[in-house]
Amino acid sequence: MAGTEGQSNLSFILNKPHDVEFAERPIPKLSDPHEVLVAVNYTGICGSDVHYWEHGAIGHFVVKDPMVLGHESAGTVIQVGENVKNLVVGDRIALEPGYPCRRCGDCLAGFYNLCPDMRFAATPPYDGTLAGFWTAPSDFCYKLPDNVSLQEGALIEPLAVAVHITKQAQITPGASVVVMGAGPVGLLCAAVARSFGATKVVSVDIVQSKLDFAKDLASTHTYLSQRISAEENAKALIKQCDLGAGADCVIDASGAEPSIQTSLHVVRMGGTYVQGGMGKSDINFPIMALCLKEVTARGSFRYGPGDYKLAIDLVANGRVNVKKLISGIVEFKQAEEAFKKVKEGQVIKILIAGPNEKVDGTFSTEVDPKKAAENSNQGGCC
Amino acid sequence: MAGTEGQSNLSFILNKPHDVEFAERPIPKLSDPHEVLVAVNYTGICGSDVHYWEHGAIGHFVVKDPMVLGHESAGTVIQVGENVKNLVVGDRIALEPGYPCRRCGDCLAGFYNLCPDMRFAATPPYDGTLAGFWTAPSDFCYKLPDNVSLQEGALIEPLAVAVHITKQAQITPGASVVVMGAGPVGLLCAAVARSFGATKVVSVDIVQSKLDFAKDLASTHTYLSQRISAEENAKALIKQCDLGAGADCVIDASGAEPSIQTSLHVVRMGGTYVQGGMGKSDINFPIMALCLKEVTARGSFRYGPGDYKLAIDLVANGRVNVKKLISGIVEFKQAEEAFKKVKEGQVIKILIAGPNEKVDGTFSTEVDPKKAAENSNQGGCC
Amino acid sequence: MAGTEGQSNLSFILNKPHDVEFAERPIPKLSDPHEVLVAVNYTGICGSDVHYWEHGAIGHFVVKDPMVLGHESAGTVIQVGENVKNLVVGDRIALEPGYPCRRCGDCLAGFYNLCPDMRFAATPPYDGTLAGFWTAPSDFCYKLPDNVSLQEGALIEPLAVAVHITKQAQITPGASVVVMGAGPVGLLCAAVARSFGATKVVSVDIVQSKLDFAKDLASTHTYLSQRISAEENAKALIKQCDLGAGADCVIDASGAEPSIQTSLHVVRMGGTYVQGGMGKSDINFPIMALCLKEVTARGSFRYGPGDYKLAIDLVANGRVNVKKLISGIVEFKQAEEAFKKVKEGQVIKILIAGPNEKVDGTFSTEVDPKKAAENSNQGGCC
Amino acid sequence: MAGTEGQSNLSFILNKPHDVEFAERPIPKLSDPHEVLVAVNYTGICGSDVHYWEHGAIGHFVVKDPMVLGHESAGTVIQVGENVKNLVVGDRIALEPGYPCRRCGDCLAGFYNLCPDMRFAATPPYDGTLAGFWTAPSDFCYKLPDNVSLQEGALIEPLAVAVHITKQAQITPGASVVVMGAGPVGLLCAAVARSFGATKVVSVDIVQSKLDFAKDLASTHTYLSQRISAEENAKALIKQCDLGAGADCVIDASGAEPSIQTSLHVVRMGGTYVQGGMGKSDINFPIMALCLKEVTARGSFRYGPGDYKLAIDLVANGRVNVKKLISGIVEFKQAEEAFKKVKEGQVIKILIAGPNEKVDGTFSTEVDPKKAAENSNQGGCC
Repeated sequence: MAGTEGQSNLSFILNKPHDVEFAERPIPKLSDPHEVLVAVNYTGICGSDVHYWEHGAIGHFVVKDPMVLGHESAGTVIQVGENVKNLVVGDRIALEPGYPCRRCGDCLAGFYNLCPDMRFAATPPYDGTLAGFWTAPSDFCYKLPDNVSLQEGALIEPLAVAVHITKQAQITPGASVVVMGAGPVGLLCAAVARSFGATKVVSVDIVQSKLDFAKDLASTHTYLSQRISAEENAKALIKQCDLGAGADCVIDASGAEPSIQTSLHVVRMGGTYVQGGMGKSDINFPIMALCLKEVTARGSFRYGPGDYKLAIDLVANGRVNVKKLISGIVEFKQAEEAFKKVKEGQVIKILIAGPNEKVDGTFSTEVDPKKAAENSNQGGCC
Repeated sequence: MAGTEGQSNLSFILNKPHDVEFAERPIPKLSDPHEVLVAVNYTGICGSDVHYWEHGAIGHFVVKDPMVLGHESAGTVIQVGENVKNLVVGDRIALEPGYPCRRCGDCLAGFYNLCPDMRFAATPPYDGTLAGFWTAPSDFCYKLPDNVSLQEGALIEPLAVAVHITKQAQITPGASVVVMGAGPVGLLCAAVARSFGATKVVSVDIVQSKLDFAKDLASTHTYLSQRISAEENAKALIKQCDLGAGADCVIDASGAEPSIQTSLHVVRMGGTYVQGGMGKSDINFPIMALCLKEVTARGSFRYGPGDYKLAIDLVANGRVNVKKLISGIVEFKQAEEAFKKVKEGQVIKILIAGPNEKVDGTFSTEVDPKKAAENSNQGGCC
Repeated sequence: MAGTEGQSNLSFILNKPHDVEFAERPIPKLSDPHEVLVAVNYTGICGSDVHYWEHGAIGHFVVKDPMVLGHESAGTVIQVGENVKNLVVGDRIALEPGYPCRRCGDCLAGFYNLCPDMRFAATPPYDGTLAGFWTAPSDFCYKLPDNVSLQEGALIEPLAVAVHITKQAQITPGASVVVMGAGPVGLLCAAVARSFGATKVVSVDIVQSKLDFAKDLASTHTYLSQRISAEENAKALIKQCDLGAGADCVIDASGAEPSIQTSLHVVRMGGTYVQGGMGKSDINFPIMALCLKEVTARGSFRYGPGDYKLAIDLVANGRVNVKKLISGIVEFKQAEEAFKKVKEGQVIKILIAGPNEKVDGTFSTEVDPKKAAENSNQGGCC
Repeated sequence: MAGTEGQSNLSFILNKPHDVEFAERPIPKLSDPHEVLVAVNYTGICGSDVHYWEHGAIGHFVVKDPMVLGHESAGTVIQVGENVKNLVVGDRIALEPGYPCRRCGDCLAGFYNLCPDMRFAATPPYDGTLAGFWTAPSDFCYKLPDNVSLQEGALIEPLAVAVHITKQAQITPGASVVVMGAGPVGLLCAAVARSFGATKVVSVDIVQSKLDFAKDLASTHTYLSQRISAEENAKALIKQCDLGAGADCVIDASGAEPSIQTSLHVVRMGGTYVQGGMGKSDINFPIMALCLKEVTARGSFRYGPGDYKLAIDLVANGRVNVKKLISGIVEFKQAEEAFKKVKEGQVIKILIAGPNEKVDGTFSTEVDPKKAAENSNQGGCC
């Protein structure tokens, strides 16, 4: 196979909680004429990766057999199947890491993220992308424009998550939007909401430094959440940010119970609230606020048609600056250390270079080291 | 004032919990050239009327001064203001019992039910319709077709509630719909869902006789809710009613915590759940089911543009048989007894005749007494 | 191949305009583990089949090589690919006669009917279903319930066309709907609109006997179109059918210029008009009526996700009686005669039995011959 | 009446085509406790004003009695009715120049722009705002933020027109939008589309200097329309602007027949086209392009709930620079000259100062005279 001779398919494998290993695995082969083979250049770490690493499971998804971690990747096309028309060898791409069935009612109706037979990277029992190579359907690989780097390309996955959440919020131009949580996804939701025409975007968190970062990135206002009742917290937020009868849209990107409760009290009559962050299965919830204010509430899960494309557009057009979120880039062999740093909340977003990638020092040359160091002091992540 | 000489404006007034009185009040005068004066013929009793009677308050709404109860009324036009074009004296009408401000953002945008300055009948401090006369804006009075009786007219209000809830559910033709609760509003939601093109309509309750009534009225399936976990209840419901991957739409018309929890587990990926019934302010809620299944949840509050008109159409065209819900009709002076019967769950819907109305025996001649007697054994109400 | 020994794959082939032949072709083989092989039982004739037969082309689609005609079919599953889970040999199915690419932006977004790479039966250069056998993706074959016959199954295709058109019209319950044209598709649109909750459904045509048929099938009102200006015709229609300020929705199922013009004058301020019928590429169009009344106009092309399923539900639940449209059933060898009858407007919908199907006389035993004979006198078709 | 002593209510009155006069009229009085009295500071000239001035009629609207012209105004509150809460004397406001009935089905449903009883400024028989004073419902007067001048305030009306058109286009973030026509409304539509998150905005016109202005204001691309067939023009536009399978949204802000035809060929499968510009009642229209591509077409008429508020937000937040459109400001007595200049296409947007307003020279001091002079060479207007 051209382009893979002498290359490593070293993979970062979770055996069981806190038990990981690096192992060479066979380079995968195309199983379908619509597939491409991708050399992975950079992979970001998601909260779900860290959760599997620590706990071996998320809800009903349990890691029973060794599983390669990682799913936030950008790479380079190495080989294309005979039916592939949209890509050629050498193309730099952002990788949408799922295989939907394309045949169920959800897939046909345009909701492939809800496909019950979805095979998704690093969701057991399917391997992830923290390896040398990955095969993908060519329509799930998105060519990066010349002005978007591969490092930025690895941020397209979390940005697509934010795009999907923000679409679910059906933000109308001129809207006021409150985003609960200023971790990576919350930050990106705030930036996307601005690009969708929101006039006022309020970031909310319990850590002031994260709010400062949010203000620097995209938010027009911030609110430091207080340890008071959800109703009082909402009142104080509305007053401080001059939201009148409440916010048009509220996005919870935290998954935290008090944030969700506050969301329902912050949203205006007839407004929209989207649950984007994951957390406890069941919480105490102000259901009558939803009922009597005729709130529209929506869940958001991964991303669907058009989300990757729009995420890339937003980066290419300078509307969302994902570079600011990159705290540092480490070599493949430092993957476990990187997981530890994410867990400890020392970074916003850390990238792991592919096993065939050279990294010049610990931090990317694309990122201002001083800025990155500052970022790494922000602490926490969604 | 023509038509009111010698007529009584006897009113049924709540002074404080369980303390009611009948008193003559002055017949109201038109305060605006767009208003009409209506002689009230029949008024149904709503759960909220009973709640004020028992507790003197619902949430933030507290009865501080004596207040006339009642808001589910049909009547006859007695006088019209000089700008009224849609009605003439003698018209039989269903009465939409609210005065929105017509000038706030919600009113202008088509959501007058969310108007913060709404003056609504029998919501403190505003008097209700259990009286001889009532003034209303002429556009909130809907002429009844010849084939719709004034008794049916008094059912238009709860039917409009059901229409609004069912619209919020955005039922698409062919949909499967589950309605939690088989009290008056749940029953009417089931009937409206059928008329909206739903193929499968499942009524759910904890009382078998109410389910039998639902099946007789409109539902294609019923499910007797069990005292098991919400997830297990949902699985059993889905299996028994052959709902595949879950229901397209779930309407909670009960307000009960276990019903709401079950709703979230019954609805399919990407489906819709509407909270139509009132209950506890805060409950334990399966928030991750909403998030991960991308459920759209919506509240429903009263009714808005077009709802009364559609409710009347549904009755006039025979799509919804509201007569079946009328358990009996009592004289005005029996109002408190009627409240007691509703509280005790002995009836589905009882009507109170206006103070100037003659009632021939306890039950309306329009209702088959045998059927009504059977109905009155059904027990409970939403 | 089990089930095909000794069976004929006789095919009805268009060589060039008015030059058809019957020829045995090889029985097709499954090319994909998700496919099934179907024995075709009945096929209806569509206006587009007749147009190709007469003219050899529709717009940019030109018949250059011999092409099998037909695409409105029901059949029986003879063989299933190894990945097929939803069907077994012997299942009776309605056949959705297209192969979308499943990979383009339109397919992924839930609009496979707009797929630029769609391979559609009897649209050049792709063969149609007037043959003994047909292979199809298993998710494009819909099992018929026990109470839906194979003859009715052949009507599912035009009913799905009507379902799609009517969905495009976004009919809200209680709406008034005008359907221009009372050919097969117009008739079915009227029936579907009723099942979607429309209160008033007006069929419009220039032939009184077709209007009588529409009234018998589904319409609440009819209007015999007059040879006057479109604006005057619209005024007369609105007055005769008591449509107030105009119809909520207007569906043109005729494709005729005067009908389309009338549609725009019949629809109310803020209403919806759908162009469902095909006709001249460019017409004289009242564009300012669209602009100043803020009309929403939509095109409709074939059918998409959920349309076949809903069409079958409507037949199975008795909401749409497609049997009434079947004027007669002929043997395969009579296909050309059947085309002539359709062209001459002697029938509403005629079915051609598959080459392996026995037909007991000219007319199906499922259809009341007297009724069918009456139908065949209705004349015309959309 | 405080604030009006010694003030002029000089009015610019159209008697019949090309016959205008200036006359003192009585200062109007508040007729309703929700009204305010406004001193008019600046008024822009709209194409419809010029059309009445030249022809005395637009469609069915005919000037039979002398009528004050003008409806694009900003002013200062001089007196408030007793029920007015949102404004105080001295507030600087943008004026929405219509009185809807607030009681018809359209008003109640949130579409007051479609109200059949709307009384609209300078639409016969109602007087316009080219006078000293004007009374308005207080909810139709929008307070200008400190950073928005009264001259900019007079541009809010055409910007609200553009906001409404662009909302009708349901632009999704990342969309490609083509705007036909680069007159004031087309220019503003392009700017609004950008602020709504459109990635690519193409302005199209037949005058290169107008395209240069559009590029300077907001558009990412421009296309000089050619005198070739609409289909060829569309192909060339798509190719030149790299629109792939066509534009997601096309807005016609020209009203010109060739532009509308081109619009339908430029829009992609499943895309949206909005008719925003007024022109001939009936045109030759590619109806099959609408049908077969499943285009959604919508009209746009004036503006509705939220449009003024959003227009002001866009100016206050710097997203739309309306100042650039102001070619100059003239004294009240120069009104007829200004009409002539607009008719001759010498200006983009010219403002007429109120009769009590001092104008320092021909051009406003707020506008850079050099820039304004350049603008005045752009020629043409929508």
